[in-house]
Amino acid sequence: MGVLETTLAAIRPADQEARAQALAHQDRLTKPRGSLGVLEDVAVRLAGIAGTSPPPSPSPAALAIFAADHGVHAQGVTPWPQEVTGQMVANFLAGGAVANAFAAHAGATVTVVDVGVAAELAPAPGLVIRKVAPGTADMSAGPAMTAEQALAAVEAGVLVARELVDAGARCLVTGDMGIANTTASAALICAFTGSDPAAATGRGTGVDDAMLSHKIEIVRRALEVNGVTAPEDGMPAAEALRRLAAVGGLEHAALAGFVLGAAAARVPVILDGVIAGSAALAAAALAPAAIDYCVAGHRSAEPGHAIALEHLGLRALVDLELRLGEGTGALLAYPLVGAAVRVMHEVATFDSAGVTEKDAQTT
Amino acid sequence: MGVLETTLAAIRPADQEARAQALAHQDRLTKPRGSLGVLEDVAVRLAGIAGTSPPPSPSPAALAIFAADHGVHAQGVTPWPQEVTGQMVANFLAGGAVANAFAAHAGATVTVVDVGVAAELAPAPGLVIRKVAPGTADMSAGPAMTAEQALAAVEAGVLVARELVDAGARCLVTGDMGIANTTASAALICAFTGSDPAAATGRGTGVDDAMLSHKIEIVRRALEVNGVTAPEDGMPAAEALRRLAAVGGLEHAALAGFVLGAAAARVPVILDGVIAGSAALAAAALAPAAIDYCVAGHRSAEPGHAIALEHLGLRALVDLELRLGEGTGALLAYPLVGAAVRVMHEVATFDSAGVTEKDAQTT
Repeated sequence: MGVLETTLAAIRPADQEARAQALAHQDRLTKPRGSLGVLEDVAVRLAGIAGTSPPPSPSPAALAIFAADHGVHAQGVTPWPQEVTGQMVANFLAGGAVANAFAAHAGATVTVVDVGVAAELAPAPGLVIRKVAPGTADMSAGPAMTAEQALAAVEAGVLVARELVDAGARCLVTGDMGIANTTASAALICAFTGSDPAAATGRGTGVDDAMLSHKIEIVRRALEVNGVTAPEDGMPAAEALRRLAAVGGLEHAALAGFVLGAAAARVPVILDGVIAGSAALAAAALAPAAIDYCVAGHRSAEPGHAIALEHLGLRALVDLELRLGEGTGALLAYPLVGAAVRVMHEVATFDSAGVTEKDAQTT
Repeated sequence: MGVLETTLAAIRPADQEARAQALAHQDRLTKPRGSLGVLEDVAVRLAGIAGTSPPPSPSPAALAIFAADHGVHAQGVTPWPQEVTGQMVANFLAGGAVANAFAAHAGATVTVVDVGVAAELAPAPGLVIRKVAPGTADMSAGPAMTAEQALAAVEAGVLVARELVDAGARCLVTGDMGIANTTASAALICAFTGSDPAAATGRGTGVDDAMLSHKIEIVRRALEVNGVTAPEDGMPAAEALRRLAAVGGLEHAALAGFVLGAAAARVPVILDGVIAGSAALAAAALAPAAIDYCVAGHRSAEPGHAIALEHLGLRALVDLELRLGEGTGALLAYPLVGAAVRVMHEVATFDSAGVTEKDAQTT
């Protein structure tokens, strides 16, 4: 079997018994029931992922930034020149980007993966070169990737996840870089949720009204040209891969593989914004149980992200109106995930601490 | 002059020049303009607080949990027995509460301040005893505190802030513990914003429908009994102190002092939820510029909190449906504040990194 097949075969749903144990444990801790809100769900989710309660610490964390270019850039869907993708990879490797600062603050390692940057990148420490192609083809004129390219990019993502877990990572964090990649994200969200391009397409990192209208039309054209119609339940894996190849980016395909690799390794993966969310839709179409292993890090300002999260049944931890990508939102959520787990290990129970429970008689 | 007078005299508005420098610096960093959303505001705020850009790191942080009891507890406004306040203080000192776990995760120290717990507490490491009274009087029958008690509690909070900053803290974090203190918070929010008790009063940590209706009526009665009418702009300090004494708690008064002490020391203070928010309203009535030094850590599930934040002009960083208090929400926000500042120190500029800006010509 190939890498993807063995990975899909290894993915199991979250452990329901560990989840139930974690839920019960939460209610014994010295705090009003449910008072930790969404963080209680996070702790229960991590117990289900690990198959044990309390779940192990999600430390150390590893950020992987998948970088690639997009043929649809030629259609004028962004004010940023394509060369910025490669320049930002150099910036990540030099430690000068926001993702580097946030990773340092959170104690996460940074790995940059060239899965399809148009420029030729020199080998460097921290750079993994798994270039499938020097950017995708223009999705508004035909498939962005061949089936072989999409599969190779997915498998690259699986292998990066596997390598990071083998090296000791206990939490994976998604990052991305690719000028024009919110256009591909919007198209993927339409392809996997049935959303209309006008609802799923946003301003990315600085699109004006006229460019937004054009971007929506490009997304619509890409879906039509590639024969991508409203999705049906229980989509076959071959069709999921076909849609990913038709309107995705190489980094989206790699991110889908990264999510699948995390799930196969039973390690949580914190999703960044709209790029990761759209990639997770593809991962879910290939293996629905993979979503049990995902934590939505932040809610992007992109409108398509809310559509993707709703479809995935995920609730973002942080909502700070970020629209940067790189993994920045997921990195901000990582300390919250760690705090949620720490509660399960360190907080006293009502019995052990001698604290009286609600509605008990006063003495 | 007394402690409060010297503190109020020392408070200056945020430094507008440092804020402007921080804003300009944000726009030179290798990220799309404004793409860090709310975190850009945080970095600018911290520059204004410190009077320099980039602002210094907010590390180390110190959490102070102000604990006190409430005479209004006798009116049946909570299902929790009053003895839990003292029991939870013991839990904090033993390191077994959620606030301890979150503080350890964030790298913050924990100081517990008995400013008015009904039980007699034995001296212990980490406990500061500044007990003004063994709980307040029942605010639904008259003033909760005398003017002297309110002033003493405010000054206790100022002194705790001063001592923590003198010991090296570069960020203060508010915490609170006091069974029934959401009732006093609701009354304070009404007293300082003019809100109706039905809008400002919430379920605290587990109030059912019948108890909520009763709690609202108790808040309404407390305001009436104490002659607390809709506030007018430019309220004199004496009237602000009178309202705080009439319907506040000893921990609210101390928290108001803690905020004033942070402002006087030009150190940021991260506010936790509705208790800190209502105390900050009192601080703002005493010194409007003190709010320049506040960062709203999280948005509580209590409805009054949103009213308080809007009145203060603050936007909460985290919204995770927490309703625990203790400083837990503020501690979750602390790494976000640190990350926002770190960006100002470590991220490259477009020039230094050789990254092409938006709308530049491609080469």
